[in-house]
Amino acid sequence: MDNFTFHNPARIHFGRGQISQLANEITPDMRVLITYGGGSIKTNGVLDQVKAALKDVTVFEFGGIEPNPHYETLQKAIEVVKAEKIDFLLAVGGGSVIDGTKFIAAGAKYQGDTWDIIESRGGVVTDAIPLGCVLTLAATGSEMNSTSVVTRAETQDKLFFSSSHVFPLFSVLDPETTYTLPPRQTANGVVDAYVHTLEQYITYPVNAKVQDALAEGLLNTLKEEGPKVLENPTDYDARANIMWAATMALNGLLSTGTPGDWATHLIGQEITGLYGLDHGQTLAIVMPAVWKYRKAAKQAKLVQYAAAVWNITEGSADSIADQAITATENFFEQMGIKTRLADYGLGAEIIPAVTAKLEEHGHVALGEHGDITPKEVAELLELAL
Amino acid sequence: MDNFTFHNPARIHFGRGQISQLANEITPDMRVLITYGGGSIKTNGVLDQVKAALKDVTVFEFGGIEPNPHYETLQKAIEVVKAEKIDFLLAVGGGSVIDGTKFIAAGAKYQGDTWDIIESRGGVVTDAIPLGCVLTLAATGSEMNSTSVVTRAETQDKLFFSSSHVFPLFSVLDPETTYTLPPRQTANGVVDAYVHTLEQYITYPVNAKVQDALAEGLLNTLKEEGPKVLENPTDYDARANIMWAATMALNGLLSTGTPGDWATHLIGQEITGLYGLDHGQTLAIVMPAVWKYRKAAKQAKLVQYAAAVWNITEGSADSIADQAITATENFFEQMGIKTRLADYGLGAEIIPAVTAKLEEHGHVALGEHGDITPKEVAELLELAL
Repeated sequence: MDNFTFHNPARIHFGRGQISQLANEITPDMRVLITYGGGSIKTNGVLDQVKAALKDVTVFEFGGIEPNPHYETLQKAIEVVKAEKIDFLLAVGGGSVIDGTKFIAAGAKYQGDTWDIIESRGGVVTDAIPLGCVLTLAATGSEMNSTSVVTRAETQDKLFFSSSHVFPLFSVLDPETTYTLPPRQTANGVVDAYVHTLEQYITYPVNAKVQDALAEGLLNTLKEEGPKVLENPTDYDARANIMWAATMALNGLLSTGTPGDWATHLIGQEITGLYGLDHGQTLAIVMPAVWKYRKAAKQAKLVQYAAAVWNITEGSADSIADQAITATENFFEQMGIKTRLADYGLGAEIIPAVTAKLEEHGHVALGEHGDITPKEVAELLELAL
Repeated sequence: MDNFTFHNPARIHFGRGQISQLANEITPDMRVLITYGGGSIKTNGVLDQVKAALKDVTVFEFGGIEPNPHYETLQKAIEVVKAEKIDFLLAVGGGSVIDGTKFIAAGAKYQGDTWDIIESRGGVVTDAIPLGCVLTLAATGSEMNSTSVVTRAETQDKLFFSSSHVFPLFSVLDPETTYTLPPRQTANGVVDAYVHTLEQYITYPVNAKVQDALAEGLLNTLKEEGPKVLENPTDYDARANIMWAATMALNGLLSTGTPGDWATHLIGQEITGLYGLDHGQTLAIVMPAVWKYRKAAKQAKLVQYAAAVWNITEGSADSIADQAITATENFFEQMGIKTRLADYGLGAEIIPAVTAKLEEHGHVALGEHGDITPKEVAELLELAL
C-alpha cells in the first residue's frame, strides 16, 4: 500500500425524506441560491420539498445548468451571487449541477478571470461560497468530493479542477428522487460509478486489501442493482444501493494508497467536449479500448477482477483478462450504453482532433504508469471503432 | 437500507514516515500536551520522531495512561491542561491513550463534575480542547471516531461517551510503529477490529450491499493478515492492511444504514471493569456466546458470513451457522486469544456481578433487537464457561 492522506468532511444525510434536514443545515439568516438544471426538479416534487424545508430562508433560484455545465452559463450565476449577496449555494440536481455549483462557489470569490480556476486545476482557489447538495442522480460522486468538471462551449474544452474549498458541507441523498430519471440517465450513472471504481482498481497490485475489497463490493453492487432499476425504476433498495455505491466510488476511499489510471476519463472528456456524447457513453467506449491496449500491464488486476466480480477463473491469465473485458462490455451494453464509436456515428476521423485536444490540455502522459502519450491514445482509439 | 447521517471530518496521514506531518498539523504558537501510556513510545523511537516534528513547538508530556484508561488518572491530566494553558492535545499510543485523551479534551472545558460527561454519554459536552493522534496499535478505531471508553477504577465502571467535539482533527497511522508490539497486544487488536466489524454485520439483513461487502472485506483482511504479523511482526504490508482495516471498522461507514448489535462490547466492558481482562479477551469470550444464544435471529447473516469469509456453504442453514461460529472461535484461538471464561480462571460465579453492573449502567436491552435483558445475559454467559 502506498502512503496517503485522506480527508472528507462532507456530511451525508441518506434516505427517504431526508430533504427535510435542510432545515437543520441552513439557517434563516442565510441568503441561499438554489442551482439546478433543466427543471425536472420542478415536475418531480423535489423543488417543492426543498422549498418546504427552507420556508423561513431567503432563497433565490438559478436554473438551466446544462449537462457538462458550461463556463458561460456559470458566469451568469456568479453575477447573480454577487448581485444578490448570496452566502450559501444549494445545488439540487446531478453531477453537472453540483460541479457547476462548485465553480460558481469558487468563481464568486475569485478576483480575476475565473478561467484561471480551470487553468490552474484549482490552484488559485483560496476561498469559496459554502455549498450543499440535494443529489437527484447517482453517478459522479461530486456530492462527496472536491472536484468539478466544467466545459467551455466556445472552445470545446472540458476540464476539471479540485479545491478543498469547494467540498460540499453536506449532501442529501434520497434514493426516491431518482425514481423518475429517464433510463438513459440512470444507465449513464451506473456506468459512470462503475468506471470510477475501475479507474482506481484496474491498475497494478499494491496489496491494498481493504481498498480492493471495497472496489469489488461496489462493482458487484452496481452490476447486480443496475439492471434491476432499469426493470423497476421504483425499487427503493436497488436505488439506495446504487446511490451509496456511486458516492463511495469517488469519495477518496478507493484511492487511498492505490494508483489511479484515469486515462479513460481524460480521453472521454475530450470526446464529450468535441462531439457532445454523454459522459457515461464515452467511458463505455474508451475503457475497454484502454484495457485491450494495456492488457499485459493490467493483467494481474484484470484476473483478480474477473474472479471477484464475474466468477471467471478458467483459462490462461491472458484469456481470463479477455473474458473480463468482454464481460464488462456486455454489462455496459446490458445497461443500454453502446461501447463503440461507430454506435454513435463516429469513426477514426475523430482521432486527430481528440489527440490534439489532449496535447492542448497538457494531458500527454496518461494512465497509472504515465506512459500513454497522444500517440498511444491514437492507437488505442483504433480499438474502439 | 435504513436512513442514516454520516460525518467523519478526521484527516488521516497513513504510511511510513508520516509522523513528520505533525509539523504541518501543529503550529509553533500552540502549547501541546503529548499524552501517552506505559512509555513504550520512548523505547521504540516514536516519541523521538514526534519531538523532532514538533521541535519548534512548546510541548509538555503526560504519561502513564493505563489500558482501559482510568478516570482518576485522566483527572490529573486535566489539571495539567488547565495549569499549563494547553491548547492542543496529541495522543501518542493505542486506543486507551486516545480514548483517555478525548476525555481529557472534554473534561478540561467542562464546568462541573467531569463524571457527568460519562453519565450523560457525552450529552453535556459542548466544547473540547482540539486533539490529534499518532496511533501505535491497530485495534479500536478511536483514531477516526468520536467515542471514548473510560474506566472508573474506584467503582469498577467501564463506560463510553460520544461527542462530535472530541473527533480527532487528524491521526497519523504509520504501520511501522506497530512492529515492536508484544504479540498479545497485536492479537488483541486484530480481534477487537474483527469484532467491531461483526457487531455491525452479524445482525439481520437490510439489503445494504456496499456495507456488507465492506464488512466482508475487512473480516477477510484481518483473518488473512492477522496470523502473518504474529509470524513476522515487521511485515509492512500486513501491518498496513491490518491498520487501515481496524480504522475502517469503526469510522462510521459500516454502521451507515445498518443495525448494530454491540451486546458483546457492553457485556465485555463489564467483565473488564470487574476482573481486568483485556478488552480483546472479553470479546473473544462473549461474542460466540451471544451468537449461540441468538443463532436463530442471526441465522441469515451468519450464513452469509460463513460463505463470504470462511467459504462454508455445505449443510443446513443451522449447521452452516454452527460452522461459522466454530470457525470464528478457532480464528480467535489461532491469534492466541482464548474464548472461554474458564481459560481466564473465571466461572459462573461472575454472572450475577456482571448482570448487576449492566443493570446499574442501564444496559438492560441489548442487541440489535433490544431483547437481551440481564436475564438473557445470565443465560448466554452460561454458554461461555
